[in-house]
Amino acid sequence: MSTRENQRWIYCQRPSGEVNESHYRLETVPLDSDLAANEVLIENHYISVDPYMRIQQSAKPNWEEPHPLNTLQRGAVVGRVVASRNAAFSDGDWVSAYTGWERYSRVHISAATKLDPQLAPVTTALGVLGMPGRTAWFGLMEAGQPRPGDTLLVSGAAGAVGSLVVQFGKKAGCRVVAFAGSDEKCEWLSDELGADSAINYRRFNGAAELDAFFKAERIRADIYFDNVGGTITDAVIPNINRRARIVICGQISQYSGNLDEVENGPRFLHHMLYQRACVQGILARDFNYRMDEMLAVVGPWVGNGEIRYRETIVDGFERLPAALSGLFHGDNTGKMIVRVN
Amino acid sequence: MSTRENQRWIYCQRPSGEVNESHYRLETVPLDSDLAANEVLIENHYISVDPYMRIQQSAKPNWEEPHPLNTLQRGAVVGRVVASRNAAFSDGDWVSAYTGWERYSRVHISAATKLDPQLAPVTTALGVLGMPGRTAWFGLMEAGQPRPGDTLLVSGAAGAVGSLVVQFGKKAGCRVVAFAGSDEKCEWLSDELGADSAINYRRFNGAAELDAFFKAERIRADIYFDNVGGTITDAVIPNINRRARIVICGQISQYSGNLDEVENGPRFLHHMLYQRACVQGILARDFNYRMDEMLAVVGPWVGNGEIRYRETIVDGFERLPAALSGLFHGDNTGKMIVRVN
Repeated sequence: MSTRENQRWIYCQRPSGEVNESHYRLETVPLDSDLAANEVLIENHYISVDPYMRIQQSAKPNWEEPHPLNTLQRGAVVGRVVASRNAAFSDGDWVSAYTGWERYSRVHISAATKLDPQLAPVTTALGVLGMPGRTAWFGLMEAGQPRPGDTLLVSGAAGAVGSLVVQFGKKAGCRVVAFAGSDEKCEWLSDELGADSAINYRRFNGAAELDAFFKAERIRADIYFDNVGGTITDAVIPNINRRARIVICGQISQYSGNLDEVENGPRFLHHMLYQRACVQGILARDFNYRMDEMLAVVGPWVGNGEIRYRETIVDGFERLPAALSGLFHGDNTGKMIVRVN
Repeated sequence: MSTRENQRWIYCQRPSGEVNESHYRLETVPLDSDLAANEVLIENHYISVDPYMRIQQSAKPNWEEPHPLNTLQRGAVVGRVVASRNAAFSDGDWVSAYTGWERYSRVHISAATKLDPQLAPVTTALGVLGMPGRTAWFGLMEAGQPRPGDTLLVSGAAGAVGSLVVQFGKKAGCRVVAFAGSDEKCEWLSDELGADSAINYRRFNGAAELDAFFKAERIRADIYFDNVGGTITDAVIPNINRRARIVICGQISQYSGNLDEVENGPRFLHHMLYQRACVQGILARDFNYRMDEMLAVVGPWVGNGEIRYRETIVDGFERLPAALSGLFHGDNTGKMIVRVN
């Protein structure tokens, strides 16, 4: 590809099940580098793939209208400025922006955030110091209301958000029970992130077995931070404590088709009544305006290693759809990022 | 029965489906009238039957251990003092107490509340000025957080709690959409209680039809006060607005068996995420200590007719189990009470 061209992944077909490359087309277009005042051209180095992208591909409205067909797949990027019409942004500056799956992004500077690679690796702007970090921090602190001594259950605990919730929960004095889909992930959760116990849910044959395990181990949730939904949630909800807080951050087990064709599961609202519990849905964007609060607290912890993070880096612009698909197979530990330059 | 005897309904067999007379036995015992200091003997006139009684007959713990077998069916009563060993309580005084399905109750005065029949009919202590009133008031005000202009959906709207939620919602400036199980109940809700619309859910064949109706009528909930659960709730939840509050007060459609053998229904937690909504379970007892607040506000409204209530009075001590069973068939409009004297 010449530097006078741009490449873009166009979302062009609605998936009815799992999303994969067949729902995209790769487009090569002339590079639009004719900047207006206060615009910059970014050469993207790292592009984010996130589970929420599949929600936006549901046929029905979610928090907004479905992602339009035949448009650039939206997403967060980290790259370097290669042209600027604003004095505050110079060639070579690292920035993050919300643009999409393209090699170059042209944005107004109000939509670009400058990054300091001395403070933290620039990829953290897509993970621990970006949207997933914000989601984990405010989701747990605001909706979860953790108190020392609480038992905090986390599903999807080895993911970008879950792995931070585990650590934030430990900082808040909780006993943390983490769920993940492999023994390797569970080892990481226990040995490096400090989870009090880590459970490979794939070793259990359905919710009834998991429920029996909770009862045998006397595991009951004061807080359940749910990224996954489905059978893990089916097993947790009958095992909540009085005034439990159930934080719905994601339902990744339900995304590949069932958001349009809803799956059935056990009714559980009577448990809300028994325990006077609360289910609270959260969304990262609601806390955008408080990003500075999160960074002020979590930034130093990342800098001094108190909060750990992993990234699963996939190499190659052409692998963006496959990387997205991999999220639904547990291919990632921590944040999944595609390196494109 | 001689006045030297007492009659009591003993809960003696756990129902696996609907509760009925076969789960009780009627016992005649000598009247225990040997009062200790500060005790009173109450001759019960009105005995309450409430849906929560069936929850307590589930095999599994709910907000407490299941109702013990072979003991008096617990419940609220209104009666007159016929013997007293405390100067503040005289023969003939009306009182309410939480005792059970028995003709006479012996209680410590700390467990009896004196009623003033001049202020309101004594039966209101079992309904609008009792537990159902407290549940409706605090459930709506605390968990529902009504604001003028909100759309409030109420299931079981013709019941003891629902019929008050409808009226409290109107006072708070809400547009109220009420669900009930007969056209007669719907007429009462619209014509007398002021519901903006009343929907006989039995006219809809399942959640999909009700969902289509909501969409056609542009009905979306800011608050959903749920006494019923099941298909009404299945239809409502995909039609909630941003930051909706779903108050779980009851799940009466689920009580007759499914609390032990859970019924399946559509998974809905992704909607919590989309709308950043909240499901909050409530229980009347959590607001016991604020009863005076409710009475100070609602008492005068009942006195001057601003808040209306109905009672479904069943006559005869021997019909207590049948009256309880009737709650699960919609036999009542407003509060179901059994007159026993």
